[in-house]
Amino acid sequence: MKKKIITISRQFGSGGRTIAKALAEKLGYAYYDSALVEEVAKETGFDPAFIEDAGEYAPGKSILSYAFSSASPHASGKPGATDYLWAAQCKVILELAEKGNCVIVGRCADYILRERDDCLNVFIHAPKAYKAKRIVELYGVTDKSPEKRLEEKDTRRRVNYKYFTGKEWGLTENYHISLDSAMLGEEKCVDIIADIVNTKE
Amino acid sequence: MKKKIITISRQFGSGGRTIAKALAEKLGYAYYDSALVEEVAKETGFDPAFIEDAGEYAPGKSILSYAFSSASPHASGKPGATDYLWAAQCKVILELAEKGNCVIVGRCADYILRERDDCLNVFIHAPKAYKAKRIVELYGVTDKSPEKRLEEKDTRRRVNYKYFTGKEWGLTENYHISLDSAMLGEEKCVDIIADIVNTKE
Repeated sequence: MKKKIITISRQFGSGGRTIAKALAEKLGYAYYDSALVEEVAKETGFDPAFIEDAGEYAPGKSILSYAFSSASPHASGKPGATDYLWAAQCKVILELAEKGNCVIVGRCADYILRERDDCLNVFIHAPKAYKAKRIVELYGVTDKSPEKRLEEKDTRRRVNYKYFTGKEWGLTENYHISLDSAMLGEEKCVDIIADIVNTKE
Repeated sequence: MKKKIITISRQFGSGGRTIAKALAEKLGYAYYDSALVEEVAKETGFDPAFIEDAGEYAPGKSILSYAFSSASPHASGKPGATDYLWAAQCKVILELAEKGNCVIVGRCADYILRERDDCLNVFIHAPKAYKAKRIVELYGVTDKSPEKRLEEKDTRRRVNYKYFTGKEWGLTENYHISLDSAMLGEEKCVDIIADIVNTKE
């Protein structure tokens, strides 16, 4: 069966988002990343910045820390906000998938769309040294070491994924294909995935 | 750099061995699987059946259980036998890799050859239902359920890998590419890997 929906999960700094965008262009598929956050914001009334963060934070922790910061006018901090956000995210992703061919980055889309048989689930990863160099080039230097920034971000993604799906983030069996972007190069990753999509008629 | 050595790690029943063999044929590479066991047997004086088993058993447990069975005339049961076997296995794999282009199945070869930059490390996996059906077709029915057989075999591989490498078996980041053989099909898996080898000149 032709794969209409490609979900891309990725380690921070691996270039997964860049690969996803190039793949969508190559295939002529819609691309959902920040657009997805905007949709969830409309659905919930939450601030987009809050939703962006919440998708990568350990549940509970993010809600509370965010609720007491000035950046989150909409977050109530009440118990249940995480579940409410999750329900909205599921609704948006399920609806977007119904619209037709698309590439979706992150947000447990592989799990949310698990009942569909037209999804190709991809994981992009790379060695630490490659990712550390890449995030400094892309996002600049901060007072934290690049290694610490990688560790923190991926730990949040791991905890978030485990909380909502009950599965281990980054385990081969959760994805149809996993690729090392440093060894293969971003272009080759795009080619491999596009080729699979085009041969699964 | 051209990848001269392909290591294939695989979940039991996923068809990883079949893929490895077809890949070696397609690339014209040497194929090491039972030949590797024979080499380790020559090196150590252990019974090949013991070595075959020990590669997939939790260390210690296998040595002892084997030492007290009649099938293992060479196993002494003394502490250190596991380490001795591991050292012999490392020596054999390092030497085979020096001989030139090859495909090596299992035996922590990805880890043993980690210092080389001409290795492509692959992991093959598949959903439980696919693997359960496949092992019954290939190896017949036993008094254990196929699901139980899958679980036991992969647990042994996981514990063995963790013991010797300190890493998690089946985690995406340990391999350059991981493929779901059920979704892609064995032939497509072979094609994808061969294509990577041929484009990494």
